[in-house]
Amino acid sequence: MNCILLPESDIALPYAQINDPAQITHVHKVLSLQLGDTLKIGQLGGNLGTAIINEMTPNNIQLADVQLDTAPPPKLDVTVVLALPRPKVLRRLIMDMTALGVRDIVLINSYRTQKSYWQSPLLARLDEFVLEGLQQGVDTVAPRISMQKRFKPFVEDELASLITHDAIVAHPYSELSLTQYLQRHALQSAPSTKAALPSVVCIGSEGGWINYEIELLAAQGCQAVHMGSRILRTEAAVNVLLGQWLLHNS
Amino acid sequence: MNCILLPESDIALPYAQINDPAQITHVHKVLSLQLGDTLKIGQLGGNLGTAIINEMTPNNIQLADVQLDTAPPPKLDVTVVLALPRPKVLRRLIMDMTALGVRDIVLINSYRTQKSYWQSPLLARLDEFVLEGLQQGVDTVAPRISMQKRFKPFVEDELASLITHDAIVAHPYSELSLTQYLQRHALQSAPSTKAALPSVVCIGSEGGWINYEIELLAAQGCQAVHMGSRILRTEAAVNVLLGQWLLHNS
Repeated sequence: MNCILLPESDIALPYAQINDPAQITHVHKVLSLQLGDTLKIGQLGGNLGTAIINEMTPNNIQLADVQLDTAPPPKLDVTVVLALPRPKVLRRLIMDMTALGVRDIVLINSYRTQKSYWQSPLLARLDEFVLEGLQQGVDTVAPRISMQKRFKPFVEDELASLITHDAIVAHPYSELSLTQYLQRHALQSAPSTKAALPSVVCIGSEGGWINYEIELLAAQGCQAVHMGSRILRTEAAVNVLLGQWLLHNS
Repeated sequence: MNCILLPESDIALPYAQINDPAQITHVHKVLSLQLGDTLKIGQLGGNLGTAIINEMTPNNIQLADVQLDTAPPPKLDVTVVLALPRPKVLRRLIMDMTALGVRDIVLINSYRTQKSYWQSPLLARLDEFVLEGLQQGVDTVAPRISMQKRFKPFVEDELASLITHDAIVAHPYSELSLTQYLQRHALQSAPSTKAALPSVVCIGSEGGWINYEIELLAAQGCQAVHMGSRILRTEAAVNVLLGQWLLHNS
């Protein structure tokens, strides 16, 4: 936690309180803060800022002098369409995409997504993973997450409306590399605009997409791109790929 | 495992055998291969290729028609100097850096590296994590890994010899962004050469570097660069950062 995010209901300026056990433990054990110390906080969906610790009990921390004067960092202008991964991987993926600042996430079914993944109890805990990601990345604005259990209807009927400009799909067996794709688009756009980066990125999970899926995505305008012959863990691939947006934003 | 790597001692062309229990389990349980099926293999430190399953027992798989005709992918031309992280994070970091193709890794001490990390039994298992990373990334050539328990002597006496051209240190509080740094260097180099990418990248662990460390690194020519205001998990930061080399290579 690089900041502690509080719901609006726990803030009454210039005061606020921390009730969440994980946050309280963090203040005590990791930050080792004392009465009078300053803490980095934020309001969920609002601004970032600081507060001073006014009172501490094992179940509650009272904050005073709460100042919420810093706007959260801009979101990355991208929608990630992600094949639902193994539950074990889902938590870190949601955390990382949130910390990176992805604006929209669509979890979809794919041929290589096992049916059991959709029954995972972790799917009911996405808000937790998002909170972890926001507190890691020092942001207050949650990504919008939607779930699409049917691949074909989503791709054929809804995907096109999300593509405000270009779209890509990560596919190790494509002929075009991401670098070639970006160079080609940079030549077409004015220098230093962000227009070179597509608005939608589709990322498969372990095992990737099958050809039928790539064809369906291509029919909606998703260009397949590879990132070299090395095969990365889904988490690593997501960070390499979305790192392009992060670095353009910084 | 996207390929199964065998030591030279288990290969006698055109035959080979798999004795490693994890690899045998993978062939049975994950790949569900049968007699006569083709398997993607490689020789540690040698070529990649294929083999046919000739005989299977619970403890051994005999391969025939072994063909090792494909060179492994090129390494990324970079030395990563990494502050030794928590043992729990070390395994995935070594795996990811190996899968990405980092050529040299130096694990060093830093102010925020706890002394206990150097006593972790995981440090004796780096070869395992490297093997996992190679089999993930479909490569055969292990990164060279060295350990430097003393920060100052390493930085002052050895670091300069590793910097064949530029060096950077990831530091959220620097004024220059990685993007600005790369743009500046791209202007100085011929287009599409890889010279814009530094030869050494220093990456702190959780909590990053202290100012004293940044100053010592700067004195040896390491330019501090940030990647925006968002703070990433070490693993995520490593993938975002080294993704630049991967994409340049692809």
